[in-house]
Amino acid sequence: MLTTDTLFEQPTLGKRMAVLGLGAVGVEMAQALARLGIEVTAFVTRKASAGLSDPQVLDTLWAQLEKEFTIHIGERATLAAHGDGVEVTSGSHRVVVDQVLVASGRVPNIEGLGLETLGVALDERGLPAFDRNSRQIGDLPVFIAGDIDPSHALLHEAVDEGHIAGMNAFANSPQAYCRRTALAITFCQPNAAVVGKSFKELGGHDIVIGHIDFSRQGRARVAQEDAGLLRVYADRASGQLMGAEMCAPAGEHLAHLLALAINNELTVQQMLNMPIYHPVLEEGLRTALRRAAGQLPNRALSDLEVCDLDVQNVLD
Amino acid sequence: MLTTDTLFEQPTLGKRMAVLGLGAVGVEMAQALARLGIEVTAFVTRKASAGLSDPQVLDTLWAQLEKEFTIHIGERATLAAHGDGVEVTSGSHRVVVDQVLVASGRVPNIEGLGLETLGVALDERGLPAFDRNSRQIGDLPVFIAGDIDPSHALLHEAVDEGHIAGMNAFANSPQAYCRRTALAITFCQPNAAVVGKSFKELGGHDIVIGHIDFSRQGRARVAQEDAGLLRVYADRASGQLMGAEMCAPAGEHLAHLLALAINNELTVQQMLNMPIYHPVLEEGLRTALRRAAGQLPNRALSDLEVCDLDVQNVLD
Repeated sequence: MLTTDTLFEQPTLGKRMAVLGLGAVGVEMAQALARLGIEVTAFVTRKASAGLSDPQVLDTLWAQLEKEFTIHIGERATLAAHGDGVEVTSGSHRVVVDQVLVASGRVPNIEGLGLETLGVALDERGLPAFDRNSRQIGDLPVFIAGDIDPSHALLHEAVDEGHIAGMNAFANSPQAYCRRTALAITFCQPNAAVVGKSFKELGGHDIVIGHIDFSRQGRARVAQEDAGLLRVYADRASGQLMGAEMCAPAGEHLAHLLALAINNELTVQQMLNMPIYHPVLEEGLRTALRRAAGQLPNRALSDLEVCDLDVQNVLD
Repeated sequence: MLTTDTLFEQPTLGKRMAVLGLGAVGVEMAQALARLGIEVTAFVTRKASAGLSDPQVLDTLWAQLEKEFTIHIGERATLAAHGDGVEVTSGSHRVVVDQVLVASGRVPNIEGLGLETLGVALDERGLPAFDRNSRQIGDLPVFIAGDIDPSHALLHEAVDEGHIAGMNAFANSPQAYCRRTALAITFCQPNAAVVGKSFKELGGHDIVIGHIDFSRQGRARVAQEDAGLLRVYADRASGQLMGAEMCAPAGEHLAHLLALAINNELTVQQMLNMPIYHPVLEEGLRTALRRAAGQLPNRALSDLEVCDLDVQNVLD
């Protein structure tokens, strides 16, 4: 039985591995171990991985993952000793492996912090209510940061939380800080990413969706990375970019590009106005943006803005 | 004697190659051929390559290139038949090779177009004056696009030129279109790129410069791509991003991120407000941006903006 704390301490691994859970870490490790020659069998209780909520993007990622290892969906897996290994069973699925990697998430390490002495109500996880933007617990001079907040357990969010908590702990009165656009990346291949509002979060919002299938994208094909799907979501009324989900070659970089646009509340049209070199994967993103733009009312005839001749010549 | 038209038609290549010129194509081909096992010797008349004008970035790129092939700087190379090969001579530098790749640029293919019948003055290259933003030649119903304009001989610029020329050819009266932020990428390793205003173009402008040395950047080291230098230029008074030059791992992607920011006239502070995941190469770019920000007057205490508690909680 291994966790990501102990996996990297093993001098050797047996040739059969079960992975329980396909969150970011589960996907990354399962794919990496499969590529190292280990027979990997993953067990999940539902079709979900890498934080993706867009069913089309998730289907595309799973089709790629299933080329490299086996995934069983079903009830919670149970483990039993079996000869020289471990028998993993989930409903009718059963496999004997040499080791099991548990990648089903972590719980906040709050034991011994004394949260119960604060005099505020604690939820069923033992956590107090706090403000996400000031990190303050009620009106107390106590601020919360890091893994204690399991809702955004990402390093860059924890760094911001520590920054805000630290600033506020020394301020005369605590301030609220705007949080950055959401960004989550899983370093599998193709990279999975969710930027801004997820497909699920936008349920009920009137959006247009643009997509690019990387199996037909020029640079992706030349680079033999021709697999993946990226979908962008824009507000139908304003054209503002709201979010994106993807499993895409160099998705980690495309996700940052979209994050900058979303963080600055840019519209699809403003993003289409940027230069895109050739041949690059960003041309695929542009195709997705153009497809979204084509569904907007008052679609511009050109990616380029009309400008005054004289002014432009002075500035150029 | 080969050009990039004929290089790819060769069924085999001899083991010794001279490359004349280290522009984008010269650098890309010299490095690629060297990696294919060919002994490459490049000849240039001055230390310049990949369009870089920032001497520190250029030095960093050359140090990388010179690990893979020989570069001679000196007077224009001359060729002479020699046994079963070609003798290439430039001053005291002399090498015998099996073939020579000429990568010293192209001239516009304007012969037979009949430009001399337009009734307008032609320059020494045989080209008429025209407006960059409308593509119009004087007041004539004639519009210019593509390689005929050697000043921006890049595919995405040519596409825009064709778009503008086509729109204007059918318009009642020609319009001027804003051109995109400049972007040039050379697909060597590390990627070289110039975004927005180059170091040379900003000469005399009051800028602050931030840098990141990728030999010490976390993700670059882990990925064994730990070589490169990126420098960003921002206006000292406003903090607006003006340009960047780089030779950097995944530089093609970092260049697009900067291009979006520059195209939307973002400040260093606005770019620092975006989320950056961990561990990624964009963290290196952030370091460069922070170093630039640190030199600006009225430097913000935080990358995050202070916001009103109640409003933010409603939006969140």
